[in-house]
Amino acid sequence: MNIVIVGLGVIGGSFAMGLKKAGYDTVYGIDTNMETLLKARKQGYILDGDLDGAALLNKADLTILCIYPHSVPDFLRAHKQDFKHGSVITDATGVKSALANQLESLLPEGVDFVPGHPMAGREKMGFDFASDTVFKGANYLITPLSKNKEESLRLVESVAMDLGFKRVRRISPETHEMLIAHTSQLPHALAVALINSDREGRETGQFIGDSYRDLTRIARINGALWSELFLSNKDFLLNAIGDFSVQLNLIEDALRREDKDQLIRLFETSTARREKLDS
Amino acid sequence: MNIVIVGLGVIGGSFAMGLKKAGYDTVYGIDTNMETLLKARKQGYILDGDLDGAALLNKADLTILCIYPHSVPDFLRAHKQDFKHGSVITDATGVKSALANQLESLLPEGVDFVPGHPMAGREKMGFDFASDTVFKGANYLITPLSKNKEESLRLVESVAMDLGFKRVRRISPETHEMLIAHTSQLPHALAVALINSDREGRETGQFIGDSYRDLTRIARINGALWSELFLSNKDFLLNAIGDFSVQLNLIEDALRREDKDQLIRLFETSTARREKLDS
Repeated sequence: MNIVIVGLGVIGGSFAMGLKKAGYDTVYGIDTNMETLLKARKQGYILDGDLDGAALLNKADLTILCIYPHSVPDFLRAHKQDFKHGSVITDATGVKSALANQLESLLPEGVDFVPGHPMAGREKMGFDFASDTVFKGANYLITPLSKNKEESLRLVESVAMDLGFKRVRRISPETHEMLIAHTSQLPHALAVALINSDREGRETGQFIGDSYRDLTRIARINGALWSELFLSNKDFLLNAIGDFSVQLNLIEDALRREDKDQLIRLFETSTARREKLDS
Repeated sequence: MNIVIVGLGVIGGSFAMGLKKAGYDTVYGIDTNMETLLKARKQGYILDGDLDGAALLNKADLTILCIYPHSVPDFLRAHKQDFKHGSVITDATGVKSALANQLESLLPEGVDFVPGHPMAGREKMGFDFASDTVFKGANYLITPLSKNKEESLRLVESVAMDLGFKRVRRISPETHEMLIAHTSQLPHALAVALINSDREGRETGQFIGDSYRDLTRIARINGALWSELFLSNKDFLLNAIGDFSVQLNLIEDALRREDKDQLIRLFETSTARREKLDS
């Protein structure tokens, strides 16, 4: 099976490394950066690479798009004639609904697009930060389209399991968007707001423990990508921020009223939920 | 030098283990749990232990209180006659101002109390979760009293460095409280509010990545301890929550107005601040 990865950034690069480790040996890469392609080939992660890729795409049985959400429709449009008949395309973007509604018109006949979301990433960008361990034990979400063939879904699922993901789940794009707002975009908003709320000139770095380090890790964020992710999931994210604010207000009120019992109740709820998460 | 640790929980136990590793071999323990004392002695971390401790305290050159903030004045009051003349006492609690104001009346003549705050901890409680690595590379804060002798401050500082802390800083209790509200209590409030804002029945665990795990780790929280820490730093913590809410509102507003440039600006600020934190 020929696999073409489009975009050898931190995610696409990790796909290349993970596939190699899993024994897939006909993997190719498309990237706009020649240096990245040369490096990936030199390190043995791709057999060959190309800046544009028409020639590679028409021999690909599976194409994995590891590019920005807004680039996915552009890429499909530009290469509509290049995809191999009977092949499968999947993506790795963190928002699924917007694309799902455009796909019908973007895809050529006989090519099946399986929307996917590997729930793993790094704060740092680029091929140099890719690794074959980033996917280990992580969750992989697929939001099938009604016209997807069962065998296409199974292909993407089996590649995901080979890459070391712990679990692949099929869900609707709407459920995906609602949950991701809470589990992914909201945490990024909180991390950004936390570190931005520090006051200038306080030498904060000398007064921190692990908790501050952990909670602000993702405040180092790819602004171009995450502004897209936030905006394309605007309504669910605003809801998630609203739900969060209700809970923060409960803590604030209990504090203001010096209601120790209420604080303890809130802490007991959070402790029970966190323990369940690990179980 | 004889050292007595009061309270062999996760912090006191870590002190015992760290001191042993650093070569201090006359370390004793006081705890209300006989099993814990026996375990600590059997494992070689203390030479001997006691449930009450009058006999141990009067031979201690350094007493390290690893008990809840509200227990510190109670313990000092109960043992006022037991401390050795010329000895040093320090504590490990995360709030400093309230105690500082009471200390004058609680301490016997000739005993020097150095308020300390090792900025390291674990979500799990008790001696069984103690370790000699938890302090490695962490920050240690001291909030000296005007009557502290320089040699007492140096004693606590040198023990801290021997335990593997990266840095010991002397600051005023007020500065400590203001910074800790932002770097320690606020992150705990956010983690609790984040996981408490999840809606019931959503199988959230199957839709998370590392960011959600990291941001909710400290939502598993010792309610008795943290409700005390929150309430004894009420004003600074309310300010910190207020500052945070201003920043979260900026994100919310940018999202509502679909102002991508503003989102990117906020992300650039947070990225620059986070990079500085690691430097």
